[in-house]
Amino acid sequence: MNNAYKQLVEIFKNIKQLNNIVAILRWDSAVIMPRGSVDARSEQVACLTNAIHEALANEKVAELIHQVQVEDLTDWDQANYKLMKKTYKNNTSISADLARALVMATSKSEMIWRTAKNENNYKLFAPYLKEVLNLTKQAASFRAQAFNLPVYDSLLDSYEPEFSTKEIDVIFTDLRNFLPEFIGKVVEHQKTKYGYHDQDHNVSLPIDLQKEIGMECMRLMGFDFNKGRLDISEHPFCGGISQDLRITTRYKENNFISGLMGIIHETGHALYEQNLPSKWIDQPVGQHLGMATHESQSLIWEYRVGRSKEFLEFLSKLLRDKFNLKSEQFSSENLYKSVNKVYPSFIRVDADEVTYSAHVIMRYDLEKSLMSGDLDVDDLPQAWNEAMVKMLDIKPPSDREGCLQDIHWPCGAFGYFPFYAIGAITASQLYQAFSKNNQNNNIVEGKFDNFREWLNLNVHNHGSKFNLQELLKNSTGENLSIEPYKNYLNNKFLGS
Amino acid sequence: MNNAYKQLVEIFKNIKQLNNIVAILRWDSAVIMPRGSVDARSEQVACLTNAIHEALANEKVAELIHQVQVEDLTDWDQANYKLMKKTYKNNTSISADLARALVMATSKSEMIWRTAKNENNYKLFAPYLKEVLNLTKQAASFRAQAFNLPVYDSLLDSYEPEFSTKEIDVIFTDLRNFLPEFIGKVVEHQKTKYGYHDQDHNVSLPIDLQKEIGMECMRLMGFDFNKGRLDISEHPFCGGISQDLRITTRYKENNFISGLMGIIHETGHALYEQNLPSKWIDQPVGQHLGMATHESQSLIWEYRVGRSKEFLEFLSKLLRDKFNLKSEQFSSENLYKSVNKVYPSFIRVDADEVTYSAHVIMRYDLEKSLMSGDLDVDDLPQAWNEAMVKMLDIKPPSDREGCLQDIHWPCGAFGYFPFYAIGAITASQLYQAFSKNNQNNNIVEGKFDNFREWLNLNVHNHGSKFNLQELLKNSTGENLSIEPYKNYLNNKFLGS
Repeated sequence: MNNAYKQLVEIFKNIKQLNNIVAILRWDSAVIMPRGSVDARSEQVACLTNAIHEALANEKVAELIHQVQVEDLTDWDQANYKLMKKTYKNNTSISADLARALVMATSKSEMIWRTAKNENNYKLFAPYLKEVLNLTKQAASFRAQAFNLPVYDSLLDSYEPEFSTKEIDVIFTDLRNFLPEFIGKVVEHQKTKYGYHDQDHNVSLPIDLQKEIGMECMRLMGFDFNKGRLDISEHPFCGGISQDLRITTRYKENNFISGLMGIIHETGHALYEQNLPSKWIDQPVGQHLGMATHESQSLIWEYRVGRSKEFLEFLSKLLRDKFNLKSEQFSSENLYKSVNKVYPSFIRVDADEVTYSAHVIMRYDLEKSLMSGDLDVDDLPQAWNEAMVKMLDIKPPSDREGCLQDIHWPCGAFGYFPFYAIGAITASQLYQAFSKNNQNNNIVEGKFDNFREWLNLNVHNHGSKFNLQELLKNSTGENLSIEPYKNYLNNKFLGS
Repeated sequence: MNNAYKQLVEIFKNIKQLNNIVAILRWDSAVIMPRGSVDARSEQVACLTNAIHEALANEKVAELIHQVQVEDLTDWDQANYKLMKKTYKNNTSISADLARALVMATSKSEMIWRTAKNENNYKLFAPYLKEVLNLTKQAASFRAQAFNLPVYDSLLDSYEPEFSTKEIDVIFTDLRNFLPEFIGKVVEHQKTKYGYHDQDHNVSLPIDLQKEIGMECMRLMGFDFNKGRLDISEHPFCGGISQDLRITTRYKENNFISGLMGIIHETGHALYEQNLPSKWIDQPVGQHLGMATHESQSLIWEYRVGRSKEFLEFLSKLLRDKFNLKSEQFSSENLYKSVNKVYPSFIRVDADEVTYSAHVIMRYDLEKSLMSGDLDVDDLPQAWNEAMVKMLDIKPPSDREGCLQDIHWPCGAFGYFPFYAIGAITASQLYQAFSKNNQNNNIVEGKFDNFREWLNLNVHNHGSKFNLQELLKNSTGENLSIEPYKNYLNNKFLGS
């Protein structure tokens, strides 16, 4: 009885182990590994990538997939089987040669990009970006054919399953109209009404203490330190595996709250991973959904908890009572001002909550033009600067603060950017649904169990059983909508 | 032209990558991994172990080995080919079932041993040791048959290639007669002549500073921090891989010199790994020799450099000039007393340089009796205590400080212990040969380049091309001999 499916389960279990090892090695590379060991590490990862490819792309897997009796499977197993087929197709839709060429081109291009960014030298980088773009287009075309999708949508699908250009366009068209004017209003509002911009609200604290406070917040949020860690890396990220979850942050001695928001953000990602369905943890259906869903989980904690008046009131009390930090700069008012100041700026990763989506939308527009051929790689810097002026009314003084700032395109990650904003919008819709049935949330008391359990039940525990739209329909009653996000921004940034 | 050998080189290159990954994961388990992630980690290691076994133990490898034209190979390639055959035989001489049973039994037994040790409950542990011993005997018998060796020698061979019971017995018989009386003399000498035992010579220092001093010593010894790290773990060890070498130590705030000796010891191991022949780094012949050779490299640095009058004079100056530590406890005399006090004690890992070999010899005797069946597992505690009285004239107050202290037997590592002492003896012979041509060593000036380069040339750079006896013959002109060791002990501990 469905012996073929059982064999596939074993094969995918083994593949998951190999992927887990890659995840631990990647964390190690970013946090621990000595710089001179990079070549040895590349060989290790290449060896595992190869083993994964060999385990998947072979006749036996094709045969087993063909033999499965779908009607005998439970709903979870059916969803799992669907993802097995997709993974197989993904791995066989492009040739081994093309896959290898892409790996070589992106790793070369990422290296050159680092130099080009340092030296503010776009011309140095352009030929490598052309090569990466060219190969990405080829690979995307094959995948598009295999999955019967438009080319750019085949890229989107690899970052958030089954999400389409059409769905993004509905949201982004609305946002593109809304944002520029709204940003202007908020800046004016903060300046004239609250004087946010008059002074520096940043709070200095020794790193050790910042870490201790961060870990206290992680514990309160429900992070399981028995199966996880907090470390330091250049860029904060959530790494490791569900059973061994390793988040990182970077501390600035003179800006305590920035490091803490990094920790809360990554803990949001971590809670998603730590609460995936344990029964399915080594199967495709037991993994997290795409990048938008993941980002919704980090942002719902960072924006709706971390940066809220209620949380900062709790934090201020915690700092006073537990850490004996009593000066005015630790007041909830000052902390609120320090994390919620809105102003147009050049660098996406440093942008505030409101202008952030503007950075995303312009990248979405630009990468679609690059993919379609409407925009030539050589003309990117100019197009970038024009888009910045249009969206945020500022012009970058250099490409380093312009089109050279992000690692995504150098690595061939086209189709990734839009989901940062989709994640924020998803977070708002989820939070609205949570609030409806939980009028008295306990954030001001530092109690987050209700909230986390709601996320467990409505998002985390489903793994990849549904796609994002289905997940939202189940948990909020509606497809993805921009309204909760706009309402939230209006209330928070223009309300009393 | 020898296409078969070339294919084998590729296969063993891949196997080496998998082994490298296991090494990084093992380091991570001991230093970084959260306690609750142990099951997930076991599955990762099992997945890799399985992949290694499958890559080795198959018809194709057997065929390729058969096809190689040995006479066409260089001397390095011939040595490499010999080790390929040995690795293959090792992997196929016992059944997959027996290998699995051993893994299960040892991991269970190790777990129980931890509890038994904590609770000082040998009876709890005995049945598990019986099972491990039984399976180890079976596996050793198969390997002995495959390699045409006596059973216990097949165990020795797996820890130090081609080293035999006969060779060990020559050395240990001499040592067994020499040690008890010598220890008595040294203790008396230190008491009456130098008053070592009158007071506590330990030096307290903050951990951060201990680490800084340790890293300074590592740099002076020639450790490459661009491809290596220093961290903390419960038991000091040298982990990682040649290109990414990770040593650990443990610090005691009230005993600076103990942590530093740990660092120097592990750095000795590390220098061996970091100076293996880079051309052969991913082939069997490019790996370190066995456990005795490795220990000779750690001990030659710890005993002949670290604990020497010359080094401690240099260290005392370094502490004064660079770290501003000027009190009397940092004098070279006090530091010397603090690391060179000799006295019989119960715990092997805390034993001094002189009594250490006594701990080793009694374990060697006991494990041979266990393997041959002359000693029953149930009678081990009594036999242990009797041996302690005979060798060191002290009787352990409990099994925790007796036969339950070491992790080796619970893990099935029979045949490992003797090489600790063989390593110390090898170190003395190597150091004597080095001294002959380097009368003015620069240890007192903190210059170790000559010494390290001599070890590179005479030990490290040979990888596994020769066995230990051949290596010694080449570098010292003689087979392994006890005389340099006894001379050294006599001069150091009974000299003026």
